[in-house]
Amino acid sequence: MGIIKKIFNKSRSPEDGIFFEEMRKILGFNPVDLSHYRKGFTHRSSNKTDENGNPINYERLEFLGDAMLGSVIAAHLFKEVPTGDEGYLTKMRSKIVSREHLNELGRDLNLIKWVESKVSAQHFGENIHGNLFEAFVGAIYLDRGFTYCEKFINKKVIVPYVDIPKLEGKVISYKSLVIEWCQKEKKQFHYDVFEDNGNEDVKHFGVRLKIDGKIVAKARATSKKKAEEKASQRAYFAFQEKINKK
Amino acid sequence: MGIIKKIFNKSRSPEDGIFFEEMRKILGFNPVDLSHYRKGFTHRSSNKTDENGNPINYERLEFLGDAMLGSVIAAHLFKEVPTGDEGYLTKMRSKIVSREHLNELGRDLNLIKWVESKVSAQHFGENIHGNLFEAFVGAIYLDRGFTYCEKFINKKVIVPYVDIPKLEGKVISYKSLVIEWCQKEKKQFHYDVFEDNGNEDVKHFGVRLKIDGKIVAKARATSKKKAEEKASQRAYFAFQEKINKK
Repeated sequence: MGIIKKIFNKSRSPEDGIFFEEMRKILGFNPVDLSHYRKGFTHRSSNKTDENGNPINYERLEFLGDAMLGSVIAAHLFKEVPTGDEGYLTKMRSKIVSREHLNELGRDLNLIKWVESKVSAQHFGENIHGNLFEAFVGAIYLDRGFTYCEKFINKKVIVPYVDIPKLEGKVISYKSLVIEWCQKEKKQFHYDVFEDNGNEDVKHFGVRLKIDGKIVAKARATSKKKAEEKASQRAYFAFQEKINKK
Repeated sequence: MGIIKKIFNKSRSPEDGIFFEEMRKILGFNPVDLSHYRKGFTHRSSNKTDENGNPINYERLEFLGDAMLGSVIAAHLFKEVPTGDEGYLTKMRSKIVSREHLNELGRDLNLIKWVESKVSAQHFGENIHGNLFEAFVGAIYLDRGFTYCEKFINKKVIVPYVDIPKLEGKVISYKSLVIEWCQKEKKQFHYDVFEDNGNEDVKHFGVRLKIDGKIVAKARATSKKKAEEKASQRAYFAFQEKINKK
């Protein structure tokens, strides 16, 4: 009740209104206290401090977000892989929350767009994407608690990125599996790629995978390669389901 | 509602009834599904497996509990120390969840009492206490979710053990601070120690700290030394509050 009141009663400046809407799009639910997200985008170079002289920037939020990410992924792996022992679970989690992976997540959400800073973007280096992603998760925790962190991580990390056979190294590329299968079964395949931006700021690519002229899977992603891989993965799992049903 | 039903409608064997009561005492709230806690006390030597052949023991739960502990402590430190940067927060958390500290926590709760194992207790080694503590936190997460993990960790870890000035190394021992102060102020002090077991299995000691014949603080703990330190800490914070009010 308190939260609902806060969402609807607060009168927002037009600028806050835009920020609220954009955050809502990324989050998939309503933010309540926008100040957490604003802090999550404040680079240390802006030299802001609060009334007690403590610096305002996203570095502390990274620590918090990293911890929340770690426990949400731990719980997911624990439930998803009942056969995996402690060592396996630890290894898989490190793969999921690797620097490279976090950078990819932050970049795909285009979080850098919101950064408030006194240095120009080209000085940031690659890791800013992952740092912003961690800080964003920290901001969600402060704003809406653990359950909403879980929701967000599930939607933005687990569903689109956590592919256990691939992380285990059993599958290197779904595209190559699809190609191999088509060649063996003497089927024609074709990846139909087109740019598909919708209303979003980040470039997106759409892919249709046709086998013997029939569309078997579609996918969208921020690069051609990713979209092809995603479509191949969908086709692979759809085929597996068919095979299992026989 | 579902949880309340589960607690009251389930008919429990007398053995489960005792286990339920004992778990409730440790937890400070009702457990719902006892099987998680039973698993949390099952040592790998018991060679149990589930219907799919997966081993049943507490090792996977350690991974889960460690993650939950990490994020609850992270959130606590983040809120408690607004002046601490990422490096400080990381260092403080490592101190709190150190192996030594987790062993102490597990030992104080006497978790080893519940271990089901085919090897005798003297083969376990010191780290079993901390491992059982982590697994216990993992079981709480599975049974009641993150909020209850937070409740439990707050009550059993943060309130009794997380003392920031001490962790920062600014205070080595509150007892020595009290003694120093009494000597400077020419006051008589006396630690009145007695054994105080109540209904619990673990030995407890009670301490009353008297200054100039007046009781200024009381505390209970699993050793004389700890109880004296706790009473001194309470006296120290009480004095500080008085001084701040002046």
